Amino acid sequence: MKAVVIHAENDLRVEEMALPDAAPGPGEVQVRIRQGGICGSDLHYYQHGGFGVVRVKHAMVLGHEAAGVVAAVGAGVTSVQPGDHVAVNPSAPCGQCRYCLAGQAQHCLDMRFNGSAMRNPHVNGLFCETVTVAAARAVKAVAPLEMLAFAEPLAVCLHAARQAGSLQGQRVLVTGSGPIGALLVMVARHAGAREVVATDVADAPLAVMRRIGADLALNTRTDPESLAPFGVDKGHFDVVFEASGAGPALAGALAAARPGAVVVQVGIGNGDMSVPMNMVVAKEITLRGTFRFHAEFDWAVAFLASGAIDVRPLLTEVVPVAEAVRAFELAGDRGRAMKVQLGF
Amino acid sequence: MKAVVIHAENDLRVEEMALPDAAPGPGEVQVRIRQGGICGSDLHYYQHGGFGVVRVKHAMVLGHEAAGVVAAVGAGVTSVQPGDHVAVNPSAPCGQCRYCLAGQAQHCLDMRFNGSAMRNPHVNGLFCETVTVAAARAVKAVAPLEMLAFAEPLAVCLHAARQAGSLQGQRVLVTGSGPIGALLVMVARHAGAREVVATDVADAPLAVMRRIGADLALNTRTDPESLAPFGVDKGHFDVVFEASGAGPALAGALAAARPGAVVVQVGIGNGDMSVPMNMVVAKEITLRGTFRFHAEFDWAVAFLASGAIDVRPLLTEVVPVAEAVRAFELAGDRGRAMKVQLGF
Amino acid sequence: MKAVVIHAENDLRVEEMALPDAAPGPGEVQVRIRQGGICGSDLHYYQHGGFGVVRVKHAMVLGHEAAGVVAAVGAGVTSVQPGDHVAVNPSAPCGQCRYCLAGQAQHCLDMRFNGSAMRNPHVNGLFCETVTVAAARAVKAVAPLEMLAFAEPLAVCLHAARQAGSLQGQRVLVTGSGPIGALLVMVARHAGAREVVATDVADAPLAVMRRIGADLALNTRTDPESLAPFGVDKGHFDVVFEASGAGPALAGALAAARPGAVVVQVGIGNGDMSVPMNMVVAKEITLRGTFRFHAEFDWAVAFLASGAIDVRPLLTEVVPVAEAVRAFELAGDRGRAMKVQLGF
Amino acid sequence: MKAVVIHAENDLRVEEMALPDAAPGPGEVQVRIRQGGICGSDLHYYQHGGFGVVRVKHAMVLGHEAAGVVAAVGAGVTSVQPGDHVAVNPSAPCGQCRYCLAGQAQHCLDMRFNGSAMRNPHVNGLFCETVTVAAARAVKAVAPLEMLAFAEPLAVCLHAARQAGSLQGQRVLVTGSGPIGALLVMVARHAGAREVVATDVADAPLAVMRRIGADLALNTRTDPESLAPFGVDKGHFDVVFEASGAGPALAGALAAARPGAVVVQVGIGNGDMSVPMNMVVAKEITLRGTFRFHAEFDWAVAFLASGAIDVRPLLTEVVPVAEAVRAFELAGDRGRAMKVQLGF
Repeated sequence: MKAVVIHAENDLRVEEMALPDAAPGPGEVQVRIRQGGICGSDLHYYQHGGFGVVRVKHAMVLGHEAAGVVAAVGAGVTSVQPGDHVAVNPSAPCGQCRYCLAGQAQHCLDMRFNGSAMRNPHVNGLFCETVTVAAARAVKAVAPLEMLAFAEPLAVCLHAARQAGSLQGQRVLVTGSGPIGALLVMVARHAGAREVVATDVADAPLAVMRRIGADLALNTRTDPESLAPFGVDKGHFDVVFEASGAGPALAGALAAARPGAVVVQVGIGNGDMSVPMNMVVAKEITLRGTFRFHAEFDWAVAFLASGAIDVRPLLTEVVPVAEAVRAFELAGDRGRAMKVQLGF
Repeated sequence: MKAVVIHAENDLRVEEMALPDAAPGPGEVQVRIRQGGICGSDLHYYQHGGFGVVRVKHAMVLGHEAAGVVAAVGAGVTSVQPGDHVAVNPSAPCGQCRYCLAGQAQHCLDMRFNGSAMRNPHVNGLFCETVTVAAARAVKAVAPLEMLAFAEPLAVCLHAARQAGSLQGQRVLVTGSGPIGALLVMVARHAGAREVVATDVADAPLAVMRRIGADLALNTRTDPESLAPFGVDKGHFDVVFEASGAGPALAGALAAARPGAVVVQVGIGNGDMSVPMNMVVAKEITLRGTFRFHAEFDWAVAFLASGAIDVRPLLTEVVPVAEAVRAFELAGDRGRAMKVQLGF
Repeated sequence: MKAVVIHAENDLRVEEMALPDAAPGPGEVQVRIRQGGICGSDLHYYQHGGFGVVRVKHAMVLGHEAAGVVAAVGAGVTSVQPGDHVAVNPSAPCGQCRYCLAGQAQHCLDMRFNGSAMRNPHVNGLFCETVTVAAARAVKAVAPLEMLAFAEPLAVCLHAARQAGSLQGQRVLVTGSGPIGALLVMVARHAGAREVVATDVADAPLAVMRRIGADLALNTRTDPESLAPFGVDKGHFDVVFEASGAGPALAGALAAARPGAVVVQVGIGNGDMSVPMNMVVAKEITLRGTFRFHAEFDWAVAFLASGAIDVRPLLTEVVPVAEAVRAFELAGDRGRAMKVQLGF
Repeated sequence: MKAVVIHAENDLRVEEMALPDAAPGPGEVQVRIRQGGICGSDLHYYQHGGFGVVRVKHAMVLGHEAAGVVAAVGAGVTSVQPGDHVAVNPSAPCGQCRYCLAGQAQHCLDMRFNGSAMRNPHVNGLFCETVTVAAARAVKAVAPLEMLAFAEPLAVCLHAARQAGSLQGQRVLVTGSGPIGALLVMVARHAGAREVVATDVADAPLAVMRRIGADLALNTRTDPESLAPFGVDKGHFDVVFEASGAGPALAGALAAARPGAVVVQVGIGNGDMSVPMNMVVAKEITLRGTFRFHAEFDWAVAFLASGAIDVRPLLTEVVPVAEAVRAFELAGDRGRAMKVQLGF
C-alpha cells in the first residue's frame, strides 16, 4: 500500500509499504483511509524535521487527521460494520497508568499517538491506505469523509475550549488564524460566545475568519494598534485562545484581556516564549496550556455529523496522495491554504 | 511627625511632616503607628527607584505593612476604640467601579494603596507616626503589634493560596524563600498541604524554611539538580508558588510540576520572563498570577491573633525609625535578614 | 395610564393610574411599555395570591418581563435616545451591600425588583404604560419588541446555565417544559450541548420542545418508565435543569443523572420538596439553586437581537391589555399556551 | 480464625472461620488485623439489618475500618515487609470501568468494598484475624494501630472536605457530632477554617466537639433557636457539612448558610429527606453529596502518622473481639461512646 513517509527535514516520500495483516484481531477494526488532513505538526516535521525537542530520528509515516471506510471488523466488534464511514482517533493511551486512571489520558505515560516522533521508535501515522485500530478508535458517523477528517483538530479545539470554562456570553479573542484558530472561532461560536475577535499577521486567513463568523478580524502586523482599544480600563476579553505560538501575540492578548481572564495557550512555537509576567500577575490572569484531547474526539464527530459545526469553509483542496509533496507545499502557504487534505 | 520618605533611588530620608487633622472625621479612625514591616517593593523603590513601569516620580512616604494603636475615633465608629491594637489595611478601593462591584476590588480602577507609586500623584504610605483611615481599614486584634504588622504580607499569601484551590492533601513547591516565600510555606501548612518543599539560591533563608516546617529546603544554585527527581514521570507537585520572580526558578518549577498542576506566580521580576511554554502546553499547566488581596486581610489578622499562623520566626529585628536607612540596608541583605520592621 | 394590578388571589384588575413625572431625572430614562410577558410568578400571584412565604399584602402592579420604546431621557444619558427599542431590566440592586460588592447582586439585601411582593411595601411592576428607570436598566437593541420582552426569562435561563459550567459537549436533561423549560432547551443548544432531552406531564408543551430542537421529549405521566433507560450504569446526563418544581421530577432526574452530575434547581414549588438524598450522596451529585440573574440580562438582549436565540416559536399570543384577565387565564392553560404577552 | 459476622438484624456473632491461604499471591499482602473501628454503617447492619435499599441477605463479615501488622508479602511486593504497621484500605475498584478511568473510582461499576452488602453476594469485611489484600491496599505508616484504624473514616471526611473547595479562611458549620462530625471538625481545622461551629441533639458528643476545637457546639434540641443568629442578612456560613442525615438539621443548616454556600451532605438517613428547596433556590446554595473516598485514604494515613490530625480524643474504648456484641451496644450509645474499636 501507499504511505506518506517523512525521512528527515525536507525529505517526504510517497512509498510502498506492506499491508497490515488481512484480518483484524478481536476487538479491532480495519479502515481504508480515504482522507487525511495535513496539520501544523506534520508541516513542522517536513519543514524543520520536528519541533522543540521532538525530532524525526527515523522514517515515519505521517498523519493523525484521517477518515475512511471500515473494511473489516474483528471478533466481538459491534460498534461498526464494513462500509461505515469513520473518523480514526489517533490517540491510544495505555489505560493503566496513573494519568489514565485519573481521567487525564492525554498525559498517559505510555501513549502511542499516530504520526508522532515523541517516543522512540516513533509511532507510524495514518497517511497510508489501510490501518488497523482498536474498535473504540474508529468512530462512526453518517457524514462526508472530508468533514470527518476534521474530527481530530476539532477535538483539539473542543478540548482547548474546555480549559476556559463556559464560553456562553463571554468575549473571546483568538490570536492566530490558521486552521486551529479558525476551528477555535467556530468552537467559541458553537459554545455561545457573545463576541469573537480574531487576529493574525496575514490578510488571507483573516478573510476566512470573517466568513466563518468572527465579529472582527484584525491584522496586527499592518495595524499594530488594532487591539489597543481593548486594553482600556484593564482589558476587555474574558477568554483568549492563543493559537499562534508567537510571543508578541501572547503579549498583545494579555494586554487586551480583562483582570481574571483565562488565556489558553494552544500553539507551541520554539519552546520558550517571552511573557510579560507583570501583566499576568497584576491582572491575575490564568494562563493555561491545552494538549491534544480525550473524550472530545467523540464530541467532534457528533458535531460534524449533526452539522452543529460546519467546517466546509476551511477545506482548501483535496490533493491526490501521489502529489503529497505538492500538498505539503500548499499547506505551508498561508496566503493560499487553510486546510489541505490528502485523498487516498 | 516623623515619616520615612523615598525621594529617588538610594535617597531615603526620615523627615518631619505635618500631623493629620487632630480629629478623625465621621467613620474614620486615627492610628498611632508603632510597627512597620519593610517589604520587597519598599526595597525596590529604595534600591532601584521602582519596578517595571512603576517609578517614583516625587517624594512619597513608604510603607504598607503597619500596625499601631487607635488614638481617636470619629463619629459613628463602633468597631474599635482608643487603645485598641490594630493592623492597618493599606488598600482603599473605590467601591463603585465595575471591578469593585464584581468582588475584585484588588483590580479597582481608582485604587488608593498606601506607599504605592502606581498612580500619580503617588499615595503616601504608612511609615509615619499617625494615619487617619476609614474604620474598616483599622482591623482590631488582641495580639502583639510586631505580629499584626505581618497582616499585609500574610494577606498577600492567603490570597495567593486561594488561586490554587484547596491545598489539603496537596504537594506544594515554593520557589524563592524570602519573607513571602516563608509566609507561603506557613500558609500551605496551615491549609493542610501534605508536603511542602522550598527552594532558593541562598542558604540563610533556606535554613529558616526548615525551621518553619518545610519538608525539604533545596539550594538550586549549589545543587542545580536538586529538583530533578521531582520531574520523573512528568512531575510531582500539585501546586507551585513562584515567589522569586526569576525565570530559571519558574522553569525549574514547571519541570517539577505534574500535568494539570497550578503554578501561582507571586513574585515579579523585571516585567518579562522567559517561560518554557512548551511545558505549560504539554502538561496543561495553569500558570496564574496573584495580586495583593481583598477579604484576606481580615483573615490574616484573625490567624495572627489566634496563633494559627505563628510568624515570630520570621522577624529579624525591629529597628528604630531614626535608623531607617540602616533598616533598609539590613532588609536588603538576604544573608542576614528575613523580615525587618521599623519601630516608631 | 393603564396598569395591571393584582389585589388578591383571583382579583386582577386593569386600572387607571397616575403617570410618572413627565420628565425623567438625571441618569433616568422614560420608557413607553409596549409588550409585557406573563410569567409563572405572575400567575402564582393571580391564582394563589403568592408562593411560599411571599404573599400579596396590598395592591401591586404586576410584571417584570417588558419591552418598550424610549420616550424621554434625563440629563447625562447617552446610552439610549427617544425612539429606541429597549428591554427593561426589572432588577434594581442597591450597589452597596456586601452581596452587591461581591458580584452577587441578585442576593442584594435591599433589592427592588419590579412586580415582586418579597419586600414590603411591594415594588410595582412593569405592566403599565409608562415607567421611569435608571438608564442602565433600559437595554437597547434593534429587535422586535415581542422578542425583547423575552429578555428577562432568557436571562434567568442563561444564569441557570452558568450554574452548570460549560455545556459544550454535555448531555442535558430539562424537566418541566413550560416557558422556562423551553428557554433552557434553547440555552443548552446555544451553549453547545451534545444532547438535550425534555420531560413534562403534558403533551402540548412537549410538542413545542420537539419543534425547538429537543432530541427527545418524554411524557413522564403517560410513560412513567421513559427515563428509566437513562438510569443504567448509574446514570447518563451530565447536567439537569429541574424547571418543574415537582418532587417526582427531581427524583426521576436524580436517577437519570450520572455520578458527579450537576442538577440545577430552577423551579420552585411549594417550598419543601422530598428529595432522595441517598442518590445525591451515593452519586455525589451537585444540586444547586439558581435565582434570577445579574449580568445575563444584557447577554439575553444581545442574543435576542443577533438571532443567536430565536424565541419566536414560544410566543402563543399577544393579548390587548384591556383583556388582561383573559390573558392570564390563557397563560395558565398549559394545553394551549406557552408564553402569553400583554400588548399596550 | 475469629471473625465478626452479621447474620441479620440484631444477630451478630463472633465465629470461627477458615484462614485465607497461608501464602499471599504475587502482589498481595497478608495482614494480621489488630484493630477494627465500628462505623455507623456497621451499626445499621446490626440494629436494622441495613440502610435504605442495602440489606443483609446472607451472613457477612463486618468491618471496613481496620489496621494491623503485615504477616507476609507475595512476590514482587516492595512497599511493605513483615512487621510493618498498615492501615487496610477496604476499597477495591475494578480499575477498568468508565468511572475508574475518569478518576472517580468511588463510583466503580464493579466495586468490591469490604463489609458492604451493596453487591450480591456481599463482600466480606475486615473484622477478622487475617486478610489478604493487594499491596496498594496495605498502607504503611509508623504509627499506633489504634490511630491507623481511623484512616478510613478520616479518608471519608477528607473526601467530603474536597467537595467544598478550599476551607482556608472559611466559616464552617458541622451538623451532627458523631465520629464523622468530629473528624469533619478536625479536617476543617486542619484545612485552615476560620470558624468551626458544630451542632447535635445530644450533649455528650457536643462536649467532645468543644474539646477538639469547635469554636461553638450547639444543642439544637435543647436550644432550638441557637442557629438563628447565623441566619441574619441571608446567612453566615460559607460551608456546611451535614453529617446527621436528619431533615431538620439540613433545614437549619440551609437557613444559616450564606448565599452561594456549599452544603456537603455526608450523612444518609432513610433515603428521602424533606428539603426546603426554596432556600436552596433563593440563596443559590450548592447541595452536594459525598461518597466514600479515593486518593484520600493515603492522605489520611499520612496525616495520622505525622500527627497533623490527632484523633486520640475520639477513641472511647478498645473492646476485645470476643465481646463484639458489647462493643456494638456501646458504639450505639451516643451518651457514652464516640468511636469504639475491636481489638484482635
